[in-house]
Amino acid sequence: MERKGLIQIYTGDGKGKTTSAIGLIVRALAYNFKVCYIYFHKEPKIWEYGEHKILKILGVDIFGFAKTHPHFFKNISKEEIRKECLEGLNFIKKIFQENKYDMIILDEILISLRDGFLEEREILELLDSKPKNLELVLTGRGATDVLIEKADLVSEIKKIKHPYDKKIKRREGIEY
Amino acid sequence: MERKGLIQIYTGDGKGKTTSAIGLIVRALAYNFKVCYIYFHKEPKIWEYGEHKILKILGVDIFGFAKTHPHFFKNISKEEIRKECLEGLNFIKKIFQENKYDMIILDEILISLRDGFLEEREILELLDSKPKNLELVLTGRGATDVLIEKADLVSEIKKIKHPYDKKIKRREGIEY
Repeated sequence: MERKGLIQIYTGDGKGKTTSAIGLIVRALAYNFKVCYIYFHKEPKIWEYGEHKILKILGVDIFGFAKTHPHFFKNISKEEIRKECLEGLNFIKKIFQENKYDMIILDEILISLRDGFLEEREILELLDSKPKNLELVLTGRGATDVLIEKADLVSEIKKIKHPYDKKIKRREGIEY
Repeated sequence: MERKGLIQIYTGDGKGKTTSAIGLIVRALAYNFKVCYIYFHKEPKIWEYGEHKILKILGVDIFGFAKTHPHFFKNISKEEIRKECLEGLNFIKKIFQENKYDMIILDEILISLRDGFLEEREILELLDSKPKNLELVLTGRGATDVLIEKADLVSEIKKIKHPYDKKIKRREGIEY
């Protein structure tokens, strides 16, 4: 399919970054886009019962990297997580070269940047190697000014209110 | 299923309100929620080929009200559109009473409020009649302070950048 693919970023502290990306996937699938969803720092045991299950049924290819994060797992070195993030980057570069997708989501990759597992220049380099036709979507808190400048579309999702503030716990089917 | 359902609002001028709602639906479906998607001011001819098609395949019930809007159709009176919005409200109240859904999306209903087709008190009254277990999601620019106060979760999606600003037209599979 011939089209110009853009770079989209969903950042900010509010609920709606990953769900926006999932919604974009659904819309793209309706027009027969070939979609790949790649996530960082997400425990597959939780997510494979959630949205990943439905995306798989819909024909989306799913890959995860750096599935651990110090927030959830202690005793994991920063170097180890950085290594897994770099494996992710290399994998993405490889599928960029194969150029077989119309849309790729890099869910929470901006957390890798924010928490110092990846450097800004490494993500910029990745963006520079994006196939022209590919719609690329990055999510996560921690978009930098340089990345915002580089992107074509940026939405900042601001938390006005969240039930966590009232000590309401994460709810199955809603938060995960 | 026994759970306390909350009221979520996605508002603001950025891209990501409807797609967030679609993403929420996908997550909810993974846990076998029964989901209903109701939209306002959206031309079905456009959307039935997009995300609505996939949602239908996934078993979501879809209904649309006030499918016209002065922005797209001239020669439609405000009174006529208000009438259609009120039909929507009555329909929603009816399905609230039947209480057969775990999640209901009211996509762009806040536009009905912003553009004067519905009054704030009418939406508040609707929220007050929500079944306790129902997760209710409202989207659209134009959430008022009173509605924000009433909701449990509010995300404001701010436009930092959008390709429309560079005169890039709406793209099939991405914007619709």
